[in-house]
Amino acid sequence: MDLYEAMRTTRAVRRHRPDPIPDDVLRRVLEAAVWAPTGGNAQPWRMIAVRDPAKRRALRDLYLPLWKEYQQEYMQASAGLTGEAAGKRDRMLAAADHLGEHLDVSPVLVVFCFDVRRMSITDEGLGRPSVVGGASIYHAVQNLLLACRAEGLGCVLTTLLCKAEPVVRTLLEIPAPWATAAFVPIGWPASKGHGPLTRRPVERMAFGDRFGGDLFA
Amino acid sequence: MDLYEAMRTTRAVRRHRPDPIPDDVLRRVLEAAVWAPTGGNAQPWRMIAVRDPAKRRALRDLYLPLWKEYQQEYMQASAGLTGEAAGKRDRMLAAADHLGEHLDVSPVLVVFCFDVRRMSITDEGLGRPSVVGGASIYHAVQNLLLACRAEGLGCVLTTLLCKAEPVVRTLLEIPAPWATAAFVPIGWPASKGHGPLTRRPVERMAFGDRFGGDLFA
Repeated sequence: MDLYEAMRTTRAVRRHRPDPIPDDVLRRVLEAAVWAPTGGNAQPWRMIAVRDPAKRRALRDLYLPLWKEYQQEYMQASAGLTGEAAGKRDRMLAAADHLGEHLDVSPVLVVFCFDVRRMSITDEGLGRPSVVGGASIYHAVQNLLLACRAEGLGCVLTTLLCKAEPVVRTLLEIPAPWATAAFVPIGWPASKGHGPLTRRPVERMAFGDRFGGDLFA
Repeated sequence: MDLYEAMRTTRAVRRHRPDPIPDDVLRRVLEAAVWAPTGGNAQPWRMIAVRDPAKRRALRDLYLPLWKEYQQEYMQASAGLTGEAAGKRDRMLAAADHLGEHLDVSPVLVVFCFDVRRMSITDEGLGRPSVVGGASIYHAVQNLLLACRAEGLGCVLTTLLCKAEPVVRTLLEIPAPWATAAFVPIGWPASKGHGPLTRRPVERMAFGDRFGGDLFA
């Protein structure tokens, strides 16, 4: 599949069929993640591909109340939306609600872990939340999402289960001080799957030489 | 370009020619970044494409002492390497040192900024460094790196300049509370450019059902 075509059509696909993912397909999408860059090429992250039904149900049971809480917050924060924007939000929330109720239906849930001792964090002590540890993890997650899209697999990035990290750590036998950064349910799309994205135009996302400056004259 | 081929060969390219990047090429790689997912589709990040020579020199002058300090730490931490591993490290450090001395030669330096108020951070208060804010930024950076690879442009992810964020914010007129997450110098490769990667095998990066568990029987 063409790179640009894959990037242009990789979107959250939240309704999955329970059918299993063949080992060779799963291996290709996981290997794509491994190719991503990390600080100092330390590769301080690992994936756990959860296929065990009992563990998937346990993760669903942890996820659902976190999702319901987030959904309430999101509804309140977006209460001012009207028209097409409100319609889009409602369709997104309906799909995300389906995911919350059926997280255990996706045949594979990939859990990204990281070693907190080796994250090359350069933005500590700046008086704002640190994000740079993510530079050694989320490039891999993006490669996984793109590879899933190329294979015809639906997937979506979620991070709510980080709130339940101590329980997840016990469930998946993740040793301290390894931590969790992302949870990606993967499955064959139950409905239309990947397709066009809703994003701001590049002119509003990219500036020239200074914040707010015009880039393309 | 094929997606898997792009992901398999996107590596740090640190020696760039000073030749300018045509607007249409720059626009394509920046637009690819825009397609990436973010928490709640908030897109709480922006890019500043720095082409102004004086600003690029100012960023080089900020970067170089940070790089020299990091280089010392990296040398000490990797002092135990021998043979081919030591050789690889030395070649990487030589290229990275070249980048530090010539950061202003790359015709474009893309600075990724983010809005700290809208990062959907779910891993605060866990007693370990937070990384989840990065889930709304680094997917975009990875798309940019992959698009550069498809266009034949060299590029490399750097984060050291976050340490100089207050000065960078003034230089690029970044308003508070926006912050910086990544700095990607881009240019046409001065030597061989992209190619094979050095990564662990997928069997060592992906587990089945529990941390350390075999995935592929």
